[in-house]
Amino acid sequence: MKKSVFYHAGCPVCVSAEHDIINLVGPSNVEIVHLGEDKSKISQAEKAGVKSVPALLTPNGHVLHINFGASLDAVKG
Amino acid sequence: MKKSVFYHAGCPVCVSAEHDIINLVGPSNVEIVHLGEDKSKISQAEKAGVKSVPALLTPNGHVLHINFGASLDAVKG
Repeated sequence: MKKSVFYHAGCPVCVSAEHDIINLVGPSNVEIVHLGEDKSKISQAEKAGVKSVPALLTPNGHVLHINFGASLDAVKG
Repeated sequence: MKKSVFYHAGCPVCVSAEHDIINLVGPSNVEIVHLGEDKSKISQAEKAGVKSVPALLTPNGHVLHINFGASLDAVKG
């Protein structure tokens, strides 16, 4: 199976959601991307449809915005 | 593994998220609850921390609010 991508920015909401998602889908099925530490990936996330973090990009290209940690604009700042 | 519970209300956002969640965690790991059709479960969802649908209650009691379909107040109405 193609991996999901979990985008986060290190906020408490993100870390909690990250643990939940890894528990649910299994660590080998998710790539974790920290947009706060790797800002070069923000535009890639935006193109995929990510509006806020934490968010999970599914293997079929859907974006699941999970709870609400921060908008992408806040991550850029 | 204890099952997750996916709460929804039949809205388009809910249906899309339901498919994604089932694909990600497997149909046998999720119980689906339609709060629009089974309003008696709304108070149970609220007690679990659900504020809006679609939402996923994880086996360890965390609530992941996914995208945004409707508030629970809208579902009650």
